[in-house]
Amino acid sequence: MTMISEGGAAAPVRPTAGTRRGAGLTEVVWDPDGFWGRMQVANAAQTFTHCIAWMDRLGWLENLDRVARGEETVDRPGWQFSDSEIYKLLEGLAWELGRRDDPALAAAYEDLVARVAAAQDDDGYLGTAFGHPGLPPRYSDMSMGHELYNMGHLMQAAVARMRTAGEDTLVEVARRAADHVCREFGEGCRESLCGHPEIEVGLAELGRALDEPRYIAQAQLFVDRRGRGLLPVRPLLAADYFQDDLPVREAEALRGHAVRALYLSAGAVDVAVETGDAALLAALERQWARTVERRTYITGGMGSRHQDEGFGQDWELPPDRAYCETCAGVASVMFSWRLFLATGDVAYVDLIERTLHNVVATAPDATGTAFFYANPLHERVAGAEYAGEGVNHRAEGGVRAPWFDVSCCPTNVARTLASLHAYAVAVEGDAVALLLYAPGDIDVALPGGRLRLRVDTAYPSEGEVRVTVLEAPPTAVTLRLRVPGWAEGTTVVVPDGTRADAAPGWWEDTRELRARDVYVLALDVSPRLVWPDARIDAVRGTVAVERGPLVLCLESTDLPAGAALEDVRIDTSVAPRAAGDGAEAAASLRTWAGARPGALPYGARGAEDGGASFALTLVPYHRWGERAPSAMRVFIPVAEVSPPQ
Amino acid sequence: MTMISEGGAAAPVRPTAGTRRGAGLTEVVWDPDGFWGRMQVANAAQTFTHCIAWMDRLGWLENLDRVARGEETVDRPGWQFSDSEIYKLLEGLAWELGRRDDPALAAAYEDLVARVAAAQDDDGYLGTAFGHPGLPPRYSDMSMGHELYNMGHLMQAAVARMRTAGEDTLVEVARRAADHVCREFGEGCRESLCGHPEIEVGLAELGRALDEPRYIAQAQLFVDRRGRGLLPVRPLLAADYFQDDLPVREAEALRGHAVRALYLSAGAVDVAVETGDAALLAALERQWARTVERRTYITGGMGSRHQDEGFGQDWELPPDRAYCETCAGVASVMFSWRLFLATGDVAYVDLIERTLHNVVATAPDATGTAFFYANPLHERVAGAEYAGEGVNHRAEGGVRAPWFDVSCCPTNVARTLASLHAYAVAVEGDAVALLLYAPGDIDVALPGGRLRLRVDTAYPSEGEVRVTVLEAPPTAVTLRLRVPGWAEGTTVVVPDGTRADAAPGWWEDTRELRARDVYVLALDVSPRLVWPDARIDAVRGTVAVERGPLVLCLESTDLPAGAALEDVRIDTSVAPRAAGDGAEAAASLRTWAGARPGALPYGARGAEDGGASFALTLVPYHRWGERAPSAMRVFIPVAEVSPPQ
Repeated sequence: MTMISEGGAAAPVRPTAGTRRGAGLTEVVWDPDGFWGRMQVANAAQTFTHCIAWMDRLGWLENLDRVARGEETVDRPGWQFSDSEIYKLLEGLAWELGRRDDPALAAAYEDLVARVAAAQDDDGYLGTAFGHPGLPPRYSDMSMGHELYNMGHLMQAAVARMRTAGEDTLVEVARRAADHVCREFGEGCRESLCGHPEIEVGLAELGRALDEPRYIAQAQLFVDRRGRGLLPVRPLLAADYFQDDLPVREAEALRGHAVRALYLSAGAVDVAVETGDAALLAALERQWARTVERRTYITGGMGSRHQDEGFGQDWELPPDRAYCETCAGVASVMFSWRLFLATGDVAYVDLIERTLHNVVATAPDATGTAFFYANPLHERVAGAEYAGEGVNHRAEGGVRAPWFDVSCCPTNVARTLASLHAYAVAVEGDAVALLLYAPGDIDVALPGGRLRLRVDTAYPSEGEVRVTVLEAPPTAVTLRLRVPGWAEGTTVVVPDGTRADAAPGWWEDTRELRARDVYVLALDVSPRLVWPDARIDAVRGTVAVERGPLVLCLESTDLPAGAALEDVRIDTSVAPRAAGDGAEAAASLRTWAGARPGALPYGARGAEDGGASFALTLVPYHRWGERAPSAMRVFIPVAEVSPPQ
Repeated sequence: MTMISEGGAAAPVRPTAGTRRGAGLTEVVWDPDGFWGRMQVANAAQTFTHCIAWMDRLGWLENLDRVARGEETVDRPGWQFSDSEIYKLLEGLAWELGRRDDPALAAAYEDLVARVAAAQDDDGYLGTAFGHPGLPPRYSDMSMGHELYNMGHLMQAAVARMRTAGEDTLVEVARRAADHVCREFGEGCRESLCGHPEIEVGLAELGRALDEPRYIAQAQLFVDRRGRGLLPVRPLLAADYFQDDLPVREAEALRGHAVRALYLSAGAVDVAVETGDAALLAALERQWARTVERRTYITGGMGSRHQDEGFGQDWELPPDRAYCETCAGVASVMFSWRLFLATGDVAYVDLIERTLHNVVATAPDATGTAFFYANPLHERVAGAEYAGEGVNHRAEGGVRAPWFDVSCCPTNVARTLASLHAYAVAVEGDAVALLLYAPGDIDVALPGGRLRLRVDTAYPSEGEVRVTVLEAPPTAVTLRLRVPGWAEGTTVVVPDGTRADAAPGWWEDTRELRARDVYVLALDVSPRLVWPDARIDAVRGTVAVERGPLVLCLESTDLPAGAALEDVRIDTSVAPRAAGDGAEAAASLRTWAGARPGALPYGARGAEDGGASFALTLVPYHRWGERAPSAMRVFIPVAEVSPPQ
């Protein structure tokens, strides 16, 4: 690892304003056997080639070639947004190649870029679903056409390449596309916007990477156009689906299609930061807070409705029909990360960690070749083993699928995992903040000189994090450690051996460091009961169990023979205890005495009859469905709140 | 009122097998000021012309004329199933004109029939969305084209006309359409079926009305073809959406799109009865029982998911996102009514009454010109007053809308209300059974002679039903009174003055009746607490209040100033008491001590803090949103089941 200061540029999100930045891709190297390291290895070894094979097989790549050859398109395969999967994969490949050499993936990258470049029109337009022989005209369906959405992902891919390797063909393609978009949609041209936000964040980041203020101004235009009714609504889709019901700065909370709302918010933060628009930034902070307070699952998942893939209303958080799309988890991390960089507030990082561990880490299986699309918190019936060569509609029933009809999630996981270590550490002046705990090495250039740290931990299975100084500048350095909101009773032992209490939030210590200095952070990751707010109707009378940053769940796989998931009640008078990286709790079986076969399930007050008591095994939610398809629940009904007789 | 025995034929559903029949349209006449009489008056006076005006304005009627003129269609208005609204309205008009004279509605009927007849092709095909210049070819989209669905509704309209007025142009049109369908889809022809069931029940009933076994055989073919994978699935729609995942006789419960499942089941009962298929009938009875036991709302509503408008899984009954489409309520009545006629089981009528009072009666407002489409049991936020000339996507937020983009519900309500009194009384040999209690006159021809009864009651506001004999045959007659499942403590006073206890189910009395004999049924309609089965996760820790057949609800309109719906808790230690036709109960306000602004709503055990106590006003659910848009809930959190500190 030799890149240091130049490596600091190589990461998602590089505001030109503000003092805080995330780590560069080569400034943090995770061990391959830690929680995240294992997932990065699987991602690199399997996910990229898996995605390319599927897109090849389904003809999504061939769409590029047909456009390049000028052929008439008949029955184009894939949805109108299938190009974006290629770009998200290119983004992931760019990050991956930016953190390590891989000749095979480099060749795959070059092949894809050549095909993308060949499909670009002379005027910079790029897209295989509109504007070519046999296809509808360009920009003939702004609400659902996804043309700017696709080009936004192209720009994010180019940003990844620019920051890790510098200008290349992909960067040139993205620049031409961005110039095209500015010409077509600039002030005084088409006064329109894309039904699926993404171009905003793409343009803003490309503007940063290429030092091109026109792109940032165009992103600002798109943000400001939203909420003015410029998008045609259509039957069964209302304006709030596209966030076109209210101007961005006037909304109280995120609403409508969750991924759209979150991509838009991420782009809007970029615009606010680059243009110094404090009012817009404050509006986004308020929306984040309100959304977290009333529209977010315990997993960090967002999106309560399968219908329109949308946020529900306040307190509408059904565990069974939770949509919690994997992509919404990725998008939520994008939004929170930008707010953290802009404000330094630890709450954003707390949500990022929760979402990463319980949504993003839940999606892929251990091999990185099958994925969840929706991430419900309650599945009443175990699904069937995934079988067959076909694409899946939505991965439900506890069965991850290799690919989807709408296959946005696999490539989103790929690009996130390839760059995830950039979210682990933040640098601000002489201060280094550790945000996500995983074993590995940190090597950053501070104003006073190089700081190299070694992190050893089995987190989140265990709560001890040992930070050893390998090399330090001759000046004072501030080390900040994030103490998660759930971590009561945390202590830190500093290099002189003193033990200090550390409340949730930032713990920090400033001193001149020397090699072999050690900090030991001790987080209590004992299992704990977590109660839902009484206003969340769908989980009234239940409790969840967490362990460190992990939400645990009950899988039918772990129930005693004959026990049905729907009859299990947890005894909260007995504290759950750690078992592996899950927990054990006390439980009994209850059935409703009033139930009569064939009759409506409503009637006179029946008691719940208590049955056999047993020890309940709870496992990390992110691993659910890995052993076998299972019924599952995160929130477990509490024995003592059943109606008394 | 002169028609008697001939009037007995004039009603929906006339099995040729079995001994039980519902009343004919002229055998029961409801007073215009009773619960149902008022709705029938509004329906007759307003709903028909309201629907015609909307279909005219939107161009759905003009679709017929364009096809009749042989014009090329460009940008056809309406969905592919908009023709069916015209047919459902014709069905309603036929029933309405069968119960009373109305020259204006008769003229409207004749005008519509002439336009329908003119649009029919020479070979009997009828449809404005396929098979004509500018439109896709006939039967090119069996999954979603709705062509047979539309023709099925045409047949139901013709059945109504045939049974009330005899052969006319509409009946001839339907006969030609049915012959066309038999030719196209008969044995050895197209081995296909329609993605939206309805043709089955249309053909079976038309076969009965015209004494044409070929139509019943074709209905049987369509039922038997289902569940064999003959329907192309498409992205985001799985086979169970169309009930094409399993053969009808192999399913355990209703599933997929609720209206589809219920129309199919109704048609399948008709087929089972006409063909003497006891195994098929038994399968449908089992599916009904299982569906009622685990997939039905307390209102009788069916369909738990907005996504795919479908049944959910067992115990998946969210009150807030309950879809409970009005049309599913109508279709459920169709299914249950057929099972009642086939078996005599009172449970089917109990569900019919529950569904009529709490789903069908909920949809229209008092004027019969605005409707609910979905009928949720919990609305967190009051909607905005309906304003504007446009069509509504779904009536939500407690606001009934005059028309919808997909406007199946208004015409379904119209045809149901026009024929509803036919479900009030059943005749079987010398027995007459009173099923639905409403003030009015009954006049039926029994084997021994004419029986005329007068029914006086303020049901469901009051529980007394007085049945006075006006004229009786000289032979013994059996009077059956339905004692609803909820009616504990019921008594009946018989003509000799004796009072008898009557358990839920059928109460019956056989004697020679004389004019002025009186029966007095006394049902206890005091408000009662109704508890959900412990397996219904979404309403754990709550209770509902019912009063007679009415489900009550809490509207924000009735809350004290400053009280938020989400904070109300009911005190179940105090019995609710009658107030108007609603109830009063004891309540308090609770908030969650653990809640922190801007933080995730999950945390350490916080208590619910009790606030001011007050009297809770509950109103019949079917009237919710009539006074003003409101937040509303049926299931109210119970104070004592909050987690103890």
